[in-house]
Amino acid sequence: MRTLQGRLDLCSINTATLGHREPLSSTIDRIAKAGFGGIAPWRREVEDTNVRDIARQIRSLGLTVTGYCRSTYLPAATRAQFAANIESNKAALLDAAELGARCFVMVVGGLPEGSRDLAGAREQVSEGIAELLGAARDSGVPLALEPLHPMYAADRSVLSTIEQALQVCDDVDPERSGFLGVAIDIYHCWWDPHLEASIQAAGRAGRIYAHHVCDWLRDTSDLLLDRGMMGDGVVDLRGIRGCVEDTGYNGLIEVEIFSRHNWWQRDPDEVLAICAQRLQTVC
Amino acid sequence: MRTLQGRLDLCSINTATLGHREPLSSTIDRIAKAGFGGIAPWRREVEDTNVRDIARQIRSLGLTVTGYCRSTYLPAATRAQFAANIESNKAALLDAAELGARCFVMVVGGLPEGSRDLAGAREQVSEGIAELLGAARDSGVPLALEPLHPMYAADRSVLSTIEQALQVCDDVDPERSGFLGVAIDIYHCWWDPHLEASIQAAGRAGRIYAHHVCDWLRDTSDLLLDRGMMGDGVVDLRGIRGCVEDTGYNGLIEVEIFSRHNWWQRDPDEVLAICAQRLQTVC
Repeated sequence: MRTLQGRLDLCSINTATLGHREPLSSTIDRIAKAGFGGIAPWRREVEDTNVRDIARQIRSLGLTVTGYCRSTYLPAATRAQFAANIESNKAALLDAAELGARCFVMVVGGLPEGSRDLAGAREQVSEGIAELLGAARDSGVPLALEPLHPMYAADRSVLSTIEQALQVCDDVDPERSGFLGVAIDIYHCWWDPHLEASIQAAGRAGRIYAHHVCDWLRDTSDLLLDRGMMGDGVVDLRGIRGCVEDTGYNGLIEVEIFSRHNWWQRDPDEVLAICAQRLQTVC
Repeated sequence: MRTLQGRLDLCSINTATLGHREPLSSTIDRIAKAGFGGIAPWRREVEDTNVRDIARQIRSLGLTVTGYCRSTYLPAATRAQFAANIESNKAALLDAAELGARCFVMVVGGLPEGSRDLAGAREQVSEGIAELLGAARDSGVPLALEPLHPMYAADRSVLSTIEQALQVCDDVDPERSGFLGVAIDIYHCWWDPHLEASIQAAGRAGRIYAHHVCDWLRDTSDLLLDRGMMGDGVVDLRGIRGCVEDTGYNGLIEVEIFSRHNWWQRDPDEVLAICAQRLQTVC
C-alpha cells in the first residue's frame, strides 16, 4: 500500500467537492496551486465553456484527469429516449477524450419515471453499455461503471454493488478490452459484505479505473448532499484503499464530497487544505 | 400466490404505521375493528403498560401477533454493555412469549459509537444471536433477523442483506432449530440483485418468519421517516410477495410505514382504511 504522506501528486479532487460555485478555470487553478496531482471535472462545467481551452489549461498545469463526470442516465421509458441517452454519452466521450480523462464515469441511471421494472432497467443498462463500448474504444477513454449506494436504486443507479457492475462488465466485455471497468467509491460500497471479494475480483480482471473517497457520517441528514470529509465518519478508509491497491491499482485517489450545508459553505481553499491534510493522515 | 382480496385476516398492521400517537390499547382496538388479522406492537408501547393486559386484549380480539418489535442493538463498545444488551433482549423475549408473538424482530444494531470496525460488529452480532438462541427456544418465540437497508449500516444494522442474515442463521443454527430465521421487509431489500435467490434460499431453509410491506418513494426525503404507502412508490410488491409465498410462506403480510410528515399526520382510521385498500389491490 502506498503512503500518501507528501504525495498529493497521487491525489485528485473531484470538482463537486467545491460545490461548483465558480468558473471551472478558477477551480482548476486552485486545485493545481494546492498541490494536487489530479482533477475530475463535471460535464455541466465543461459544457458551459470551451472544452479545448479547459483541456489546454489542465495539461499546462500537469494535472491528471482522473475521471470525467458523468454519463447521461441510460434507462428510458421510450426507445427514442434511450437512443438519445446513448447519443448524449457518445458526445460526452469525445469531450472526455479531449480532456485526456482516465475514464468516463458511468452513473447508469435508475428506474424510468413511473416504472417498477428493476430487471428491465438493468437490461437497458447492459444494452446501453454494450452500445457505448465501441465509442469508448474509438475515443480511447474507458467506461468506469460506478455502482451507487442502494438508496439511489430508484432514481440514480440500478447498479448497486461492485459485484453487479462487474457482472455487466463480464457480460458485455468478456474479452477484457481495457475499455470497461468500475469506479470504486467508498461512499457507495463501504457497507457491502462482499466488498473485499468484489474489489479483489475487479482487480484480478484489471477493471478498477478509479477510487473515490469521502466518508459516511453516522448521523447522515440527507440522502444526496451530506457526505463527510475523510476521517469524520465511520468508514475504514485505509483498509479499503489497501484492498484496492493490493490488487495493483496505481491510479490516483480522488476526493468527491457532496455537502450542501457544510463543505460547500466553506472557503474553497480551506476545503482543499483540509482534503490535503486528511488524505495524508487518515486515508 | 394467495389473493388478499377480501382477506384482511391475512394482513397485519405494525403499530408504528400509526405513529405511536395513542395508547396501545386504543390502537389494538382500531386495528381489530378495521378487520385486520394481525398486529405487531413495539416494546416501548408494551413496556409502558401491563404486558398481560395487552396480551389478553389481543387474544380476545383474535389478532395474531406477527412480530414483536424489536431487539436491543447488540454491538457494544464494552463487554459489560454487550452483556447488558443480551439481558435486555432476553427480558423482551419473555414479553414476546406472553404476547404469543410469531417472532421477535431482531434489528441487530450498527457500529458502536466511535467504531469503524464493521467486521468486529458483525462478529458481535453472531455472538449475540448465538447467546439468544437458547432463550428464544425456551420462550417458544423464534428470532427473526431483519436485515436493514444499507443506509442504516452505521447506526442501526450491520446486517444489510438477506443473504448475510441467512449466513448468520446457518453459522449459529446449522441444525435449523426452528427458532432462527429472517424477516423480509421490502423497504430494506427491494434493490438487492440477489433478492429472488436469497428469498428462495431462506424459504428452502424454512427461515422466513415475517414479510413486511410499505413502498420506496422515488423522491424519498428522509433516511428514516419517509416510507411510502403501498402503491405510491417503485417497488414491485406483488412480485416480491409472490416470490416469498412461492417458498411456502403462509404467514401474514405486515404493513410497516414510518412517515413523519404524511401518514403520521393523518387520522388513524383513514390510514388503516387506505392500508386495507392498498393491500387488496396493489400488494
